[in-house]
Amino acid sequence: MYFFSPAERERKELFGGVNARTFWGEHMLLAVVDIPANGVIPPHSHPHEQAGMVVAGELTFTVDGETRTLRAGDVYVIPGGVEHSVVAGDAPAQALDVFSPVREEYKY
Amino acid sequence: MYFFSPAERERKELFGGVNARTFWGEHMLLAVVDIPANGVIPPHSHPHEQAGMVVAGELTFTVDGETRTLRAGDVYVIPGGVEHSVVAGDAPAQALDVFSPVREEYKY
Repeated sequence: MYFFSPAERERKELFGGVNARTFWGEHMLLAVVDIPANGVIPPHSHPHEQAGMVVAGELTFTVDGETRTLRAGDVYVIPGGVEHSVVAGDAPAQALDVFSPVREEYKY
Repeated sequence: MYFFSPAERERKELFGGVNARTFWGEHMLLAVVDIPANGVIPPHSHPHEQAGMVVAGELTFTVDGETRTLRAGDVYVIPGGVEHSVVAGDAPAQALDVFSPVREEYKY
């Protein structure tokens, strides 16, 4: 009821080659997101605040025009409504994204 | 403004030997929590929903009487107001905890 193994969760494709496994409560939705080597999440925004951590690999984030390459253990906080995009490095990468409020379209 | 390295963040002691480095937005507070080998977070509860992922090591969670040992990559979602405790395995462990709403007492 409280515990989940991503290995047992179905993957949902978010963008070409980028997939997520999601988990949620009342206030937050967690997404374990896998991005292939050199994968791209194009610029987009949503009203939900998004925060998280890079779990593996390198991800270059651009948030409201500010660009930074983050590595495993680095953290980000993206306010709702702010445009952001992500490009993976030369190896597959994984991030834990958390959205609040819950992104209803990512429940499945 | 949007990007953070836990290595550059001051540690806050939560319980004996258990420390956290915290980051926050409007709706969520993230805590990178380090628990020493065999460290214990005693039973407690708070009104905030708590969700997260084990980053390294093994953590045995007990949530409302349900016990499960989680390993790196495993996910948990603990509703607000529900009693929970955690015991680390024989090696140091790390978890990314996310609280919503923001735990104001963990801002620093």
